[in-house]
Amino acid sequence: MGNSFGTLFKITTFGESHGKALGVIIDGCPAGLDIDETFIQNELIRRKPGQSKITTQRKENDEFEILSGVFEGKSTGTPISLLIHNTDAKSKDYSHIAEKYRPSHADYTYDTKYGIRDYRGGGRSSARETAARVAAGAVAKLFLKKIGVDVTAYVSQVGTIQAPEYHEMDLSKTEDNIVRCPDPKVAEEMIALIDQTRKNQDTIGGVVTGVIKNTPAGLGEPVFDKLHAELGKAMLSINAVKGFEYGSGFKGVEMYGSEHNDLFYNDEGKVKTKTNHSGGIQGGISNGEDIYFNVAFKPVATIMKDQPSIDKTGDDATVSGKGRHDPCVVPRAVPIVEAMAALVIADFFLINKTSKLSD
Amino acid sequence: MGNSFGTLFKITTFGESHGKALGVIIDGCPAGLDIDETFIQNELIRRKPGQSKITTQRKENDEFEILSGVFEGKSTGTPISLLIHNTDAKSKDYSHIAEKYRPSHADYTYDTKYGIRDYRGGGRSSARETAARVAAGAVAKLFLKKIGVDVTAYVSQVGTIQAPEYHEMDLSKTEDNIVRCPDPKVAEEMIALIDQTRKNQDTIGGVVTGVIKNTPAGLGEPVFDKLHAELGKAMLSINAVKGFEYGSGFKGVEMYGSEHNDLFYNDEGKVKTKTNHSGGIQGGISNGEDIYFNVAFKPVATIMKDQPSIDKTGDDATVSGKGRHDPCVVPRAVPIVEAMAALVIADFFLINKTSKLSD
Amino acid sequence: MGNSFGTLFKITTFGESHGKALGVIIDGCPAGLDIDETFIQNELIRRKPGQSKITTQRKENDEFEILSGVFEGKSTGTPISLLIHNTDAKSKDYSHIAEKYRPSHADYTYDTKYGIRDYRGGGRSSARETAARVAAGAVAKLFLKKIGVDVTAYVSQVGTIQAPEYHEMDLSKTEDNIVRCPDPKVAEEMIALIDQTRKNQDTIGGVVTGVIKNTPAGLGEPVFDKLHAELGKAMLSINAVKGFEYGSGFKGVEMYGSEHNDLFYNDEGKVKTKTNHSGGIQGGISNGEDIYFNVAFKPVATIMKDQPSIDKTGDDATVSGKGRHDPCVVPRAVPIVEAMAALVIADFFLINKTSKLSD
Amino acid sequence: MGNSFGTLFKITTFGESHGKALGVIIDGCPAGLDIDETFIQNELIRRKPGQSKITTQRKENDEFEILSGVFEGKSTGTPISLLIHNTDAKSKDYSHIAEKYRPSHADYTYDTKYGIRDYRGGGRSSARETAARVAAGAVAKLFLKKIGVDVTAYVSQVGTIQAPEYHEMDLSKTEDNIVRCPDPKVAEEMIALIDQTRKNQDTIGGVVTGVIKNTPAGLGEPVFDKLHAELGKAMLSINAVKGFEYGSGFKGVEMYGSEHNDLFYNDEGKVKTKTNHSGGIQGGISNGEDIYFNVAFKPVATIMKDQPSIDKTGDDATVSGKGRHDPCVVPRAVPIVEAMAALVIADFFLINKTSKLSD
Repeated sequence: MGNSFGTLFKITTFGESHGKALGVIIDGCPAGLDIDETFIQNELIRRKPGQSKITTQRKENDEFEILSGVFEGKSTGTPISLLIHNTDAKSKDYSHIAEKYRPSHADYTYDTKYGIRDYRGGGRSSARETAARVAAGAVAKLFLKKIGVDVTAYVSQVGTIQAPEYHEMDLSKTEDNIVRCPDPKVAEEMIALIDQTRKNQDTIGGVVTGVIKNTPAGLGEPVFDKLHAELGKAMLSINAVKGFEYGSGFKGVEMYGSEHNDLFYNDEGKVKTKTNHSGGIQGGISNGEDIYFNVAFKPVATIMKDQPSIDKTGDDATVSGKGRHDPCVVPRAVPIVEAMAALVIADFFLINKTSKLSD
Repeated sequence: MGNSFGTLFKITTFGESHGKALGVIIDGCPAGLDIDETFIQNELIRRKPGQSKITTQRKENDEFEILSGVFEGKSTGTPISLLIHNTDAKSKDYSHIAEKYRPSHADYTYDTKYGIRDYRGGGRSSARETAARVAAGAVAKLFLKKIGVDVTAYVSQVGTIQAPEYHEMDLSKTEDNIVRCPDPKVAEEMIALIDQTRKNQDTIGGVVTGVIKNTPAGLGEPVFDKLHAELGKAMLSINAVKGFEYGSGFKGVEMYGSEHNDLFYNDEGKVKTKTNHSGGIQGGISNGEDIYFNVAFKPVATIMKDQPSIDKTGDDATVSGKGRHDPCVVPRAVPIVEAMAALVIADFFLINKTSKLSD
Repeated sequence: MGNSFGTLFKITTFGESHGKALGVIIDGCPAGLDIDETFIQNELIRRKPGQSKITTQRKENDEFEILSGVFEGKSTGTPISLLIHNTDAKSKDYSHIAEKYRPSHADYTYDTKYGIRDYRGGGRSSARETAARVAAGAVAKLFLKKIGVDVTAYVSQVGTIQAPEYHEMDLSKTEDNIVRCPDPKVAEEMIALIDQTRKNQDTIGGVVTGVIKNTPAGLGEPVFDKLHAELGKAMLSINAVKGFEYGSGFKGVEMYGSEHNDLFYNDEGKVKTKTNHSGGIQGGISNGEDIYFNVAFKPVATIMKDQPSIDKTGDDATVSGKGRHDPCVVPRAVPIVEAMAALVIADFFLINKTSKLSD
Repeated sequence: MGNSFGTLFKITTFGESHGKALGVIIDGCPAGLDIDETFIQNELIRRKPGQSKITTQRKENDEFEILSGVFEGKSTGTPISLLIHNTDAKSKDYSHIAEKYRPSHADYTYDTKYGIRDYRGGGRSSARETAARVAAGAVAKLFLKKIGVDVTAYVSQVGTIQAPEYHEMDLSKTEDNIVRCPDPKVAEEMIALIDQTRKNQDTIGGVVTGVIKNTPAGLGEPVFDKLHAELGKAMLSINAVKGFEYGSGFKGVEMYGSEHNDLFYNDEGKVKTKTNHSGGIQGGISNGEDIYFNVAFKPVATIMKDQPSIDKTGDDATVSGKGRHDPCVVPRAVPIVEAMAALVIADFFLINKTSKLSD
């Protein structure tokens, strides 16, 4: 259960870390969209392992194949299926943990829930599943480009090192460094911290900030499916995420209403707000201002140090630090956050076509 | 769209702040459950306005009526409908803002989305809708009691005043004071701050912490419908919520994997973890430890001070501080957080009955 | 489970035959629709009991009340809730069958499924639930009028008495007689047969034919949610329905492809077909021709004669013919068939707004 | 939209007739089920083209590949993806109809709905999509075997040639002849008729009857998701289906209640009915008796004779009888009907695990 996301622009992902392939079905992409395969591939490259010294050295090209839903370069309105074959799946790396429960991994909970578990590389619980999300998100981005919506994300924190506010930086510089922080100086510090952490055979957490510009006002459904509620679910469904906040977020707790309220004004016929503590969303519906949010990632659970644990039988066992993993997940999480955000906005854009009679 | 929540234990709410009534339909409550109407009423009383000097003085008894789905005191498996009539709906209070956009309210976004708006008391965007959630959540709680799950929440922060960690307090004391903080001393400070804020004609934010004990391991679906992702969506769908974090949350960002990992041990045959940064959820699935999370609430947007704004035509307008509102929403938000949490756990409990063949 | 119908124009019904009330929530009706309460009431009057000598004599005015979702006569985009109170619920009529299983009723299956049953008038399994469908369908009809779609139905068969094909009759005459057959002569025969059947303390089956004109081409989703598949589900979900066919239906089985194929031609720029064995649907999608279909209703299970049966304990029991019931259900089923058809078309119309990029 | 079917045992299909591959994702198959690949392959062989002289001569081995969700031969609870590659896709066969609208095909409706169409072999509208359903249905059958449910189907009518009632034949003989009718004599007549029809360059319709034995009582949801309503939708979603009836079906219309009612009796502690006009379903819920139903298939639209039509521009055009097609679809439809029925029962079986508190 729960391998689908979205209502009208709906995706279903499948595949295990060390199975034959990963994939995603997109059901509901409007017909007539130019499917730019180079763009999709580039998004996958932004997420793929082995892209720099601060990411896992697992080698996957993450080349994808479109099996259906695209004809002569355009979406046809039928399900678009994207397949990504696994090439560097070293199952032997994992046989040693077949019977053991890795600390803060899903081994124990999967065993309890299903009574069986594909232990190879974490199987379905591996973040490798997010490659399928990035592929689908790339299609959502192609759709959003058509309506002028711009979805970006960047690394705003690693450990205790924080970047400035998003409006204080040039977000076009995000891809200029391997940690994906638009501030070059802060980026250097982050890279140094991650590199040192890796040398210490340890891992560290971080924050990815998402920024969505030019969202038309009116997106989001006002009660349970508030725009920020779906965004939050989307982000919290990403591996290793521990928290989500938008607009003023947790800091807003300490403010008074008289400070926090965003005053409306008339900007040459356009309704704007003087401040944006609302994060572009009021009553669960976009108001046209920038949507911005933070996503908290915990330190990766797999560390290179040995850790005490237990096995299936309850006996003591040592989980030894083998395998190839990221010392910090946030650099590679940036395209994943963008993908999930794009999927949420695309879905609400389609849903909103039915809100009004005149529409 | 988006007025339903849940998959198998599914609710649909309806009703406006100043309409005839609010209500909720529960579709999927298992048959044979004793429907304790006194318990449901008491949950509504915990949320109802006018309950103390630090809440709005609007008078609503929030008495409810069961229209269907219950026969001779038991659920029958058919939809349970609960109706709450509005009695103290002073529409004249609101006529003055029919044409104006209140800062940080949903007036502008509703107008943009629907082209029409029931402006009386915010209509559907009013937090009054949460009365229906509390009624449904009470039924979910009755179901969870049968399986031993205990859902509680309390106020952990108002402005900058913070309570200790949940395991450092006696949660049974939450209802002993009007602010619903289990620490009596901290509660006093919180009450003083809220009271002063009210006198200043202002409002202030806060945090509600939820704690779920005795959840069986195995609940939650591992990919998009992770237990914490649904919990997060549930909380973010509550009016005025700006953020959600579970377990180590945003603090986890600053930790190293070697500190953050929860080590497993064998507690007389039971699998337990020495720490619980995971917040009782690993890979999106409950592991049997306490589930705990924080929900950030912004300061209420309606303040008693006049505020500059614009009207539908774009002309300048003054929103004057009328009406009856909460200076701080968190004390009344406690039962709402509990209700949404109970609905999420009940739903996943039912879904999990189908995970394994042996089940 | 399963008390909701539709994807974007979605309804949820609740209520038992002898409970306090029946009702329906409409979630997804576009904002700005004029809600003509007189029209809704008239649709309910077409379905209500006691309307003629050939229907049950139970007296229900079926007056409805709108609790939410309508403001100043227009839909607001929020859930529209319609409530119908039960007034003539004579529970004593039913106490005698509390422990017995009535032949071809849902008593035994409800007991098996839920372990508990509201036996009063069949509880949730009573066709009284369809009053809520008719109320919701009336709103769907108001929406369809705006886009020019015309949904009608009539009685085409009672027992072995059949009416001519729909295009051979003037469908505007359907309401001119109590059996709702547009052919006055056939109507007379049908009424005589039903009347005689009632005098024989028996019941008889019938067929309702639905005709939908002016459906825009392009409605329906091509694989599982074909327009005729959803129509079929909608009709089969009505009490006492045993079969559904559209276009050539079961007769089409005996035809050759060369006879059955509908040849396209260009009618002054409009694409039309010379015949319409397709029933206005090709590949699950409307083609603009008339959509027509037949719905088979079995004879009502409650008869006035005594019948042998068993009780909960498995002991022999006699089900005596008490209560007030229809000798033939089809006259009152006409507005129900129309309501369900209207809901299906309205839903697909909204869904289709998202099929194409240009849209 | 609409490429998924089911609630808990949920499938999503994808792929075009002449694309790279077809496939299906099964989300919700309980963990621990032995996935017998030979059985799945055999089900695909029962449906595959070129299996006899009375089916299309297109050559497809319909070999499938499992990409995920199965580990060491067992389902893991994660999505099971099955892929079927297209090998004999002769696109040139179809270029001639790229611009033309084939009579009673989906060409015109797809063009209208999507503004673009993969015309190769009908693209997504081709019955080739049903291969994915058969693969998924085979997994559902493996699950149903575990609970003792037996799903079968056979050809009960071709043109005007009808087989006896299902209980008058030995259903184990269905696979003994190429037309899949358990009565050898009737089968011969059917084969002769189909063969003659093929020689006449024409096509003919037929009926497939489904029989489900040993369904536990209690499956199906009583209002919109009645067991027969979902079965009906499932069958009507199969290409070329024009009608569905269960139990007494359309014949029941002509019966009196006193004849039609199925009287209960106590069969050594088991509740049984003396007749089964209800078709094993009462009030939308299974009662433990045999479930049986008829599915009407129209004659295949593609005939070998030339037919007049129009093209995209509205000009007259001739559709010439090329390609490789079935003169009668029902022999190959038998496994498809079984597959869809198995998916419906498996889904309701899982849903029903949550009906009662005691469960």
